[in-house]
Amino acid sequence: MTAPNTTAEIISTGTEILQGLYPDTNAQYLSKVLNEQGIQVVYHTAVGDDADALRSALQIASQRADIVIIGGGLGPTQDDVTRDVVAEFVNKPLLPDSKAEEWIKKRLTERGIPLQDYILRQSCVPADSLILYNYEGTAPGFIIPATQAHPCIIALPGPPREMHPMVERDVIPFIKKNYAGAVFIRTHIIHTIGVPESFINTSLRDLFTADKRVTLALLAKVGMVDIRLTISASSSDELNELSETFPQKILKRLNPEDVYGFDDDTLELSVGRLLIDNKLRVACAESCTGGFLSMRLTNVSGSSAYITENYVTYSNDAKIKVLGVKAQTLANYGAVSSQTAYEMADGVRRLADADIGISITGIAGPTGGSAEKPVGLVYFGLATKRGVSTYKRQFYGNRHENRLWSTDFALDLIRRSVLNGLNPEISFRFFNTD
Amino acid sequence: MTAPNTTAEIISTGTEILQGLYPDTNAQYLSKVLNEQGIQVVYHTAVGDDADALRSALQIASQRADIVIIGGGLGPTQDDVTRDVVAEFVNKPLLPDSKAEEWIKKRLTERGIPLQDYILRQSCVPADSLILYNYEGTAPGFIIPATQAHPCIIALPGPPREMHPMVERDVIPFIKKNYAGAVFIRTHIIHTIGVPESFINTSLRDLFTADKRVTLALLAKVGMVDIRLTISASSSDELNELSETFPQKILKRLNPEDVYGFDDDTLELSVGRLLIDNKLRVACAESCTGGFLSMRLTNVSGSSAYITENYVTYSNDAKIKVLGVKAQTLANYGAVSSQTAYEMADGVRRLADADIGISITGIAGPTGGSAEKPVGLVYFGLATKRGVSTYKRQFYGNRHENRLWSTDFALDLIRRSVLNGLNPEISFRFFNTD
Repeated sequence: MTAPNTTAEIISTGTEILQGLYPDTNAQYLSKVLNEQGIQVVYHTAVGDDADALRSALQIASQRADIVIIGGGLGPTQDDVTRDVVAEFVNKPLLPDSKAEEWIKKRLTERGIPLQDYILRQSCVPADSLILYNYEGTAPGFIIPATQAHPCIIALPGPPREMHPMVERDVIPFIKKNYAGAVFIRTHIIHTIGVPESFINTSLRDLFTADKRVTLALLAKVGMVDIRLTISASSSDELNELSETFPQKILKRLNPEDVYGFDDDTLELSVGRLLIDNKLRVACAESCTGGFLSMRLTNVSGSSAYITENYVTYSNDAKIKVLGVKAQTLANYGAVSSQTAYEMADGVRRLADADIGISITGIAGPTGGSAEKPVGLVYFGLATKRGVSTYKRQFYGNRHENRLWSTDFALDLIRRSVLNGLNPEISFRFFNTD
Repeated sequence: MTAPNTTAEIISTGTEILQGLYPDTNAQYLSKVLNEQGIQVVYHTAVGDDADALRSALQIASQRADIVIIGGGLGPTQDDVTRDVVAEFVNKPLLPDSKAEEWIKKRLTERGIPLQDYILRQSCVPADSLILYNYEGTAPGFIIPATQAHPCIIALPGPPREMHPMVERDVIPFIKKNYAGAVFIRTHIIHTIGVPESFINTSLRDLFTADKRVTLALLAKVGMVDIRLTISASSSDELNELSETFPQKILKRLNPEDVYGFDDDTLELSVGRLLIDNKLRVACAESCTGGFLSMRLTNVSGSSAYITENYVTYSNDAKIKVLGVKAQTLANYGAVSSQTAYEMADGVRRLADADIGISITGIAGPTGGSAEKPVGLVYFGLATKRGVSTYKRQFYGNRHENRLWSTDFALDLIRRSVLNGLNPEISFRFFNTD
């Protein structure tokens, strides 16, 4: 038996969110942090910059969560209502904090901004609250511990650059100290590529209900499926043991080559690590992806170990001049063809003196397609010292998606080639690449 | 006087959202669509895949909004509770729809998936509701018009690839027909770059309160500020007139060169358009950004008009071999220097025979910095037929941010150079670039 979890609700303030100007990434961030501390997030609510709406949301949240976190609305303007609404709700006066006041004055002076009274409003927090100093901005946050009358209320500044350090510095330690989890929760993610969701679903079917302490979910993107395990245990030992054993049960059902990473791993990070471990260098020749593959491969700190140079050859002339693609090849088969992909990959590998040459040429769209070569048709070349192979894929997305999925596939080609001793001939079980 | 707006609440279902696995982009999308139709979104709520939580959220939403849209929870599994909760809430039986049933059977057959009874659950909708067929997936959505007892309830599938077409096809026409706006709302965005938020704030100060029908907001990112105007009018004519006149008032206060676009314009789209209009070609030589600039410049459909080739020269040897940077320059000043940026830009312009050559060389981090050349230090070269200039910036972000902001600045350099007759010497009023 596990004790019932501490619950939390996240309230985000901001009319921009209700207008759809951007997604509520603060709620996402706070949810992740809270779940990692064993706190179960039960609701998100977003309200406009409006005192009545926030008051009502706070009342509702107070009845259904042990901790209420409010993000945003702590700035200096009339629109910033969080401070006043919370103080009224817990029936405490707002009092200025001298350290916060000094900090605000110092920051404005440094930046040559004239000090106006309304800006100093930000140094006020409800009496008896725990103040959270804001070293990345001006407005401090605060924590009001739970009483008989209300749950624990935490108010944080909205800008992520201010919120995140404050959460790391003060909120997580507060939660660790005051809400030491009766339930220990950990999430693992296993990242797969090249296998359809339905196949994974069937392979793992009985594991979905094998252990009540483990919740399994599949998150499918195009060409990739993430397997997510959420483990709830009643002790740290139990959690550690399940974290050891259950992912192994899943991995035994999968082809090891189809698993590219775990948890925060990205595809490019896994590929980069493989290249570093094997002391291999790769060079890219890109047409329709226009540098996207190169950008992803260099997203990894330390990528200079495996990249010296990459080429974006957008025009036919550049393919000839830079990579040595034959004019005749382009004339006979066109830029979007396996023959051109072959010569691009072969050319870039020689040019960069790399272990692996990879090329992408296709029609990203929305224009440029034809009946014979529709939008989303992309050819790939993979060149190693063992030879050159080409691959053909048909994607059905918009321009950005076709470019993104092309780079996913190219990264996977590099990955599988390294895993197979630089064999350029990769066979895929679940889709055609001829 | 404007009549009170029709209000809406968006309820998103999905335990993944409460676990922070991804942001609630469905709520964002729906908010944007509703605001464009003159519907005021007053709350977002996210709940887990749990009937009790959804029931409670639906009850609360019904008391504070005229339209409640529920996203997700229409799939075939036990976790998918929306259909049942809504039917119970409006006190109607769930009835199968034969057309939806046929569609599901056809889709499964085509894909060779065996038909199981539980999958057909998806063809059921509450009696007397308006069914929304799902041509991109299996589960239909539905609309239950408002009665004395409950508001209008709209249930939509969670996957964006299914939700968006359904909204375009059926939900927007339904709203247009049934909620013809007493208030007409339109949002304009003016995108600026290179001017601090505080300066824009001061320049526009009186305009913030000049007209009750116009709400102004500044959304600041690093180096860029978006000015958002939301206009509420009581007639279409009034809306059109304000849309003509008010943005002009703002533009008169700004330096035209600092405005790079409007509404959905991105920086790369604006730069691409400028290059096409002026029949100019650009070539990039990138080091620390590793292809990011090239990727953004080719994000634009039709970019082959202004890009033929770009080079990622990550190693010193590649800078020498590919771009003709002098070994002596690298030895004397290092790869991250104005001298190297100069030779990279000059070299790539000549190599590609382009009108503009642009180079980026810097330290993206997190490693590779020193006291003299810290992480975030980036040099830029801008070469045209009129000469070559270099620029220095210091950024304070993580690896991804430093790379992103570097490409923002490089795109802005290209833009300002084109606006100034290919002058490579750009002066910035608000920050040092020496």
